[in-house]
Amino acid sequence: MTYYQQHQADFLEGLKTFLRIPSISTLSEHKPDIRRAAEFAVNELRAAGMSVAELIEGKGNPLVYAEWLGAPGKPTILFYGHYDVQPPDPLDEWKSPPFEPEVRGDNIYARGACDDKGQVYIQIKAVEGLLKTTGKLPVNVKFLLEGEEETGGEHIEAYVKTKPPRLQADAAVVCDTEMFAPEMPTICVGLRGMVYYELLVQGADHDLHSGVYGGAAPNPMQAVAEIICALKDRDGHILVPGFYDRVVPPSAKEREAWARLPFDEREYTEKEMGARELVGEPGVPLLERVWGRPTVEVHGIRGGFTGEGAKTVIPARAVAKISTRLVAAQRVDESIAQMQAAVKAACPRGVTAELRVLSCGEPSLTNPDNPFIRAAAEALKETFGQETVYIRSGGSIPIVGVFDRNLGIPSVMMGFGLPDDNLHAPNEKFHLPNFYRGIEAIARYLEILGR
Amino acid sequence: MTYYQQHQADFLEGLKTFLRIPSISTLSEHKPDIRRAAEFAVNELRAAGMSVAELIEGKGNPLVYAEWLGAPGKPTILFYGHYDVQPPDPLDEWKSPPFEPEVRGDNIYARGACDDKGQVYIQIKAVEGLLKTTGKLPVNVKFLLEGEEETGGEHIEAYVKTKPPRLQADAAVVCDTEMFAPEMPTICVGLRGMVYYELLVQGADHDLHSGVYGGAAPNPMQAVAEIICALKDRDGHILVPGFYDRVVPPSAKEREAWARLPFDEREYTEKEMGARELVGEPGVPLLERVWGRPTVEVHGIRGGFTGEGAKTVIPARAVAKISTRLVAAQRVDESIAQMQAAVKAACPRGVTAELRVLSCGEPSLTNPDNPFIRAAAEALKETFGQETVYIRSGGSIPIVGVFDRNLGIPSVMMGFGLPDDNLHAPNEKFHLPNFYRGIEAIARYLEILGR
Repeated sequence: MTYYQQHQADFLEGLKTFLRIPSISTLSEHKPDIRRAAEFAVNELRAAGMSVAELIEGKGNPLVYAEWLGAPGKPTILFYGHYDVQPPDPLDEWKSPPFEPEVRGDNIYARGACDDKGQVYIQIKAVEGLLKTTGKLPVNVKFLLEGEEETGGEHIEAYVKTKPPRLQADAAVVCDTEMFAPEMPTICVGLRGMVYYELLVQGADHDLHSGVYGGAAPNPMQAVAEIICALKDRDGHILVPGFYDRVVPPSAKEREAWARLPFDEREYTEKEMGARELVGEPGVPLLERVWGRPTVEVHGIRGGFTGEGAKTVIPARAVAKISTRLVAAQRVDESIAQMQAAVKAACPRGVTAELRVLSCGEPSLTNPDNPFIRAAAEALKETFGQETVYIRSGGSIPIVGVFDRNLGIPSVMMGFGLPDDNLHAPNEKFHLPNFYRGIEAIARYLEILGR
Repeated sequence: MTYYQQHQADFLEGLKTFLRIPSISTLSEHKPDIRRAAEFAVNELRAAGMSVAELIEGKGNPLVYAEWLGAPGKPTILFYGHYDVQPPDPLDEWKSPPFEPEVRGDNIYARGACDDKGQVYIQIKAVEGLLKTTGKLPVNVKFLLEGEEETGGEHIEAYVKTKPPRLQADAAVVCDTEMFAPEMPTICVGLRGMVYYELLVQGADHDLHSGVYGGAAPNPMQAVAEIICALKDRDGHILVPGFYDRVVPPSAKEREAWARLPFDEREYTEKEMGARELVGEPGVPLLERVWGRPTVEVHGIRGGFTGEGAKTVIPARAVAKISTRLVAAQRVDESIAQMQAAVKAACPRGVTAELRVLSCGEPSLTNPDNPFIRAAAEALKETFGQETVYIRSGGSIPIVGVFDRNLGIPSVMMGFGLPDDNLHAPNEKFHLPNFYRGIEAIARYLEILGR
């Protein structure tokens, strides 16, 4: 019986302690909990045997840094994760309280169980096992954990951009993604980028009565609708000139692999999404639509009257929240210029429209032939007893692009979540068999890299 | 010096007392003020010499009823007005508090000064002067005042629909409109009707992450935009099939009269509306666009995320507030069926759309050759010393259609407001010369009718 098998009960208790800290980064009243969670991680890393484990203080929430550099000549791996969590609302939909972790069946339920405390804890416990049983690690290992992932990760990005020597590494390992299906070890090799915008449309300088002025007054709500419809057609095809120019289609090999993935479109549509029907570009397979194609989505429109009953107002102003997802090899800056030109061209008479950028992150795509990814696939296959599959994600993990551009290293996205883990939703859970196997898989990964 | 000239100071003091009562019908905490305002009106009518003056209690806020029927063989006039007012927000934009009436220059500033307490008071004081000086009225007179005009007027409509014998009359006089310009006596002969809708669009049964599902998930916000754009084109032309079929264009005579009205389009656009540019159907003159053409306007869209910062949500549901204005001879029921068919046809894949009616009122158009209107034009001309002009209003006064259909009587819309009276806005005012001349004009009107 290995160290990892012997200590499963300890790992679970430790994870519960971590999960009890309500380190919600979007709510300022939880600042003390943020610090408690960061200190918890430092203490765990120190107890695991890392030679350095400390907080990096700066603007924003502290970063957690740790290192063990006792393997000269061997590669250096930089583990990334985050100790902050999403708010738990709506609270009344949780079956057990979000910060009182509860095991039901094979799962542990708590906010952060999967995203991302459970996966951060996997990384720490993998290293602990190797250090406790062999006194050393097969490769050099660094940790960089942040406490602002759920609020945009602004400060870790600023820190990495200073290219601190202590972050030098050969590859990053990001455990913040999911497996394609239970029992199916998965590596994510592509992420969509994102630009989040506010579209500000101004008509008259004050709200107008729609009876008195309707027929003559510009209506910013109508204008927002017209601009939105000018960005994407009813088939989901983006109309912004040039937007698809740099899009690299998936290779024939990748398309074939995606087609072989076990996927029940009806279950995905009706159970997972709760929708009647899928939409999007006709003729493009579903996984390619969400992994390999850019999108434009409207998230909400502020302005005018939205309360109960009737108010006949032509609002002076409307603000739409809009985001685009980008895929390799689109470029954030170029896409912003394209969007701004398209909004300008679509802006109707009588109003002004301004498209402001709130945040952005580049898309990323890694070649699976990279040796750090090949080693991960091997470790996962050994641990799970199944062939590793390569997928992409429709979401965005901006740190991957930040590591790439500033540290010049690829990110190995080895995640142990499942599609039904309720990330950002009530009843977030983590599948405990994946938690235990994840620890073993990461340890095995370091061993393979050290050969 | 007439009674009316002698008592101007009394009229002003009485009006101030009326205006000090914050009878805001949209806020339930003002219920006691609503009753105080109704009782104030009853007392004023009784003091004026009306033989009956009482509250009609029922569901909702009380109606005020009064009558003087001592002119057998003469016509019967039904005065209509409302004693409730709009909320005063935003409070900090008022130069003097909204319920502490203040005279500055030729104007009295207070919520309700023009809409509609000042005009209701005109009606009462006109009758008072005739009764005090001659002991009788030249015609039979009834009053029906309501306290829910600003919240939809549901209960007065229900009451009038019962066709109570005490409401029998030959014409209604509605003082709730405005003069086209200062010194220009004005009768409004046409009102647009309105249907106020909620458009409910449902996609998936829960909010979805736009990274994970963007490209496959139906987006109700996008769907609302598509439906809105399918209802009206960028030139303001309504695309709903059949919507214009019954529209009666203004007569050549009416168009000529409108063209002769003193109207500075630049001042209207830049000063009154605070807009850069007017919009709407090309080739249709401005006054016809706002008085004689139907419209579709979006007032607001609820759903998704509209707060500070970024949240990448594809909302499950979106609700748009939309209204149409109708002109003679469109019919509310038919227009609803047309709108619902258009929404159904425009609803994109993956979502359901439902168009619910919240409230409605028929359009109205009165022939100026009606003897009750001719008499009003004569009374106004005598009092103001200027030719009376006939206009229409883009707004809706549903009671006019309700009187027409249930009591079979025309409404004479003789209003004494001015375009810059700030109805429903901060610093509402009433032009005092119009207040005093309004009283005399109404008294003169009753004399002419009694000839």
